[in-house]
Amino acid sequence: MNNYQDKLLYRRSIRQYKDKEIDQQTLDYILSCGIRASNCGNMQLYSIIITREESQKQKLLPLHFNQSMIENAPIILTICADINRFGKWCKYSNTTNSLDNLLFEQISTIDASLLSQAIATAAESKGIGICFLGTVNYNAQAIGEVLQLPKGVIPISCITMGYPNEEPILTERLSLNSVVHNETYKDYSKEDIQNMYRPIEENPLNQAFVKENNLDNLAQVFSQIRYNKDFNEQSSKDFKNYLNSNFLSQENKI
Amino acid sequence: MNNYQDKLLYRRSIRQYKDKEIDQQTLDYILSCGIRASNCGNMQLYSIIITREESQKQKLLPLHFNQSMIENAPIILTICADINRFGKWCKYSNTTNSLDNLLFEQISTIDASLLSQAIATAAESKGIGICFLGTVNYNAQAIGEVLQLPKGVIPISCITMGYPNEEPILTERLSLNSVVHNETYKDYSKEDIQNMYRPIEENPLNQAFVKENNLDNLAQVFSQIRYNKDFNEQSSKDFKNYLNSNFLSQENKI
Repeated sequence: MNNYQDKLLYRRSIRQYKDKEIDQQTLDYILSCGIRASNCGNMQLYSIIITREESQKQKLLPLHFNQSMIENAPIILTICADINRFGKWCKYSNTTNSLDNLLFEQISTIDASLLSQAIATAAESKGIGICFLGTVNYNAQAIGEVLQLPKGVIPISCITMGYPNEEPILTERLSLNSVVHNETYKDYSKEDIQNMYRPIEENPLNQAFVKENNLDNLAQVFSQIRYNKDFNEQSSKDFKNYLNSNFLSQENKI
Repeated sequence: MNNYQDKLLYRRSIRQYKDKEIDQQTLDYILSCGIRASNCGNMQLYSIIITREESQKQKLLPLHFNQSMIENAPIILTICADINRFGKWCKYSNTTNSLDNLLFEQISTIDASLLSQAIATAAESKGIGICFLGTVNYNAQAIGEVLQLPKGVIPISCITMGYPNEEPILTERLSLNSVVHNETYKDYSKEDIQNMYRPIEENPLNQAFVKENNLDNLAQVFSQIRYNKDFNEQSSKDFKNYLNSNFLSQENKI
């Protein structure tokens, strides 16, 4: 097995970075690899916003719930679904944007995500560490305002990147069998669920989370504390409103 | 530059495959790399459905608009957003699924897509060719029925894979400058749009598309023929109905 294949199988997210810039040539290589990823009809329904300036980082920091990587990383990428560029091309070609609907919100989200992962892998192939910040989806509208996104452009993913200053352990995953199905989806029995989550529930770090929150089990920590239902549903309404005001046409509102 | 980095920068989708199986060990390696991709809260909100059986391929074929890769590829992966597994874990842990809302439809779509691209890259690192079929999003509900997806599971991406039996040319892309923005989004002038799309419009294959459709320009081919507005909007309504019936809770319908 070659070294690169090892990197794919044993990759880790990196949250602490050295005080070392990523040079423009390396960044261009990484982004050039990214845009080789497959995309719908080769329409490239995405944009990449690069943040390096301290003033912009300070505006983004609270919107990413003050995660240290925002201050610590030399480069932050916010990768966006973008039907604005395509729409302008249509406008200047005497035709109408046909993508300002929920289906293409889904498709451009997928394409921006494929781009994001291709960028992440290319960065890692160059010895650069990355971390995705899922907070971008919770605060999409406010982050879009900091980045001055026009109508038709919404943030999808945020990647912080820099040279690694830590060697974290490999995080746990469910077994491959737990997420793979042959031919048709085989739904899970109670026993299946208990067997597949047991190793994660028995992890001492996770047991500590349960104890410090005075709950009975790890699923309760996830559904009541970390991904609280009321907070998720309020954030979901905000996201829906953002799609209606900043992505979907009048006739395609949801 | 090493060989693997060349592969990232010059990757091509492969649509014609040799009559050669992908062995289980190789497939397991590819999928194991895939699940190392970053994901929200390590909740792994995705499932992978493997199709190899001829009878299943024949059911999927028309739903993918009869694209030859479905019959030709030894393996088809349909990668799904999945909040069913998490929801069952919650149920058997005396708590409530907090993810059956639009925000987590978006987040699980992103995570399934990051997984998809990590799988694609790992396959390519092993000399296997892949092609994404965007048709999966147009016919999500019918494909979900063929794969017997339960509520909480929807198809996001479809990847056909096999050993390459063609050496296609590198497809065009907009220049990197066209999709990258520094610090804030710089919107496009008419001149910007004309300059960035000119190389694509001047491609003889694209000029032939314009001519055979009796249209004025390439943007019209995209917005009126290939991604027709009426067809997109009908498909978008179908997709919205599918989310309401198969993913979102009663209180979170859109």
